[in-house]
Amino acid sequence: MELFKAIEARHSYRGAYTEEAVPRSDLERIVAAGLAAPSGCNAQTTRFVIVDDPEILAAIGNLHTMPAMQQAKAMICVITDREPEPVYQDMSFQVEDCSAATQNMLLAITALGYGSVWIDGWLRAENRAETIGDMLGVPSDKILRIILPVGVPAAEGPRRDKLPFVKRAWFNAFGA
Amino acid sequence: MELFKAIEARHSYRGAYTEEAVPRSDLERIVAAGLAAPSGCNAQTTRFVIVDDPEILAAIGNLHTMPAMQQAKAMICVITDREPEPVYQDMSFQVEDCSAATQNMLLAITALGYGSVWIDGWLRAENRAETIGDMLGVPSDKILRIILPVGVPAAEGPRRDKLPFVKRAWFNAFGA
Repeated sequence: MELFKAIEARHSYRGAYTEEAVPRSDLERIVAAGLAAPSGCNAQTTRFVIVDDPEILAAIGNLHTMPAMQQAKAMICVITDREPEPVYQDMSFQVEDCSAATQNMLLAITALGYGSVWIDGWLRAENRAETIGDMLGVPSDKILRIILPVGVPAAEGPRRDKLPFVKRAWFNAFGA
Repeated sequence: MELFKAIEARHSYRGAYTEEAVPRSDLERIVAAGLAAPSGCNAQTTRFVIVDDPEILAAIGNLHTMPAMQQAKAMICVITDREPEPVYQDMSFQVEDCSAATQNMLLAITALGYGSVWIDGWLRAENRAETIGDMLGVPSDKILRIILPVGVPAAEGPRRDKLPFVKRAWFNAFGA
């Protein structure tokens, strides 16, 4: 799929999935897109666990009320360090790193005909990052930050409105 | 450009630019790609100032030692709230939001034949975000988080090595 088309087509899909499986070759292409994202000082801090084991998918899906999480044929679990080491002066960029990787993967998911949604804050509540991290053997010094469910959308999902360009972007001066 | 090709071709370019101008139509397409990125709870928190005024470009470029910053024909300045309001429970996602937008823009920059690099930590040091923010009229409750210089690369830039898939990604269990 052409890049600008993929950027335009990508949207958060929370609905049901069909029964169609997601082959590992596609999951590997999606995660390879994540690996290709930039990272602060090229530290490549983000790690990925790709879940396609039906038992683990069910165990994670049971924790959520969203059809996309309950019916996902695969999930991509995005992992960072719990206490990131500085890589530039006293700074680390692991949130930026994993977000750039996630955005690449969402575009790849779109281009391959799947739907997904960026699951993030939900993991930070009620110890869910730890509960699911334990299912995946995530070490105690790492933390599960993001999950992307993957499957073939069973229906066209709703798309949320976006603010127009002129409300968010200007030339040469803020709000010009 | 095809999506996976753009993801593969994107790399951090820090070198010199040619004298070729970057038309506003291209800058608008690049920033539209940023606007199309997801944001936590669709809060669309990221703002953008596109700099193509030669005087402002020179004033910013003079602060940096990198050819891409000194010779940029345009810069895209990515702005968030200084103290983000929660949008989900007590959480905000503005770093994630602006990072996803930035990644979309880096891919768009690549697809249109330009080169760029994600300038981030440098802005947080020595009050540079404030100094440059003042040049752009960024309000005091907002902060300049990221700059992307834009121009046509004058040469092939070096590409840093990336760790292989097996060192960063696994199926169903961390480190499996």
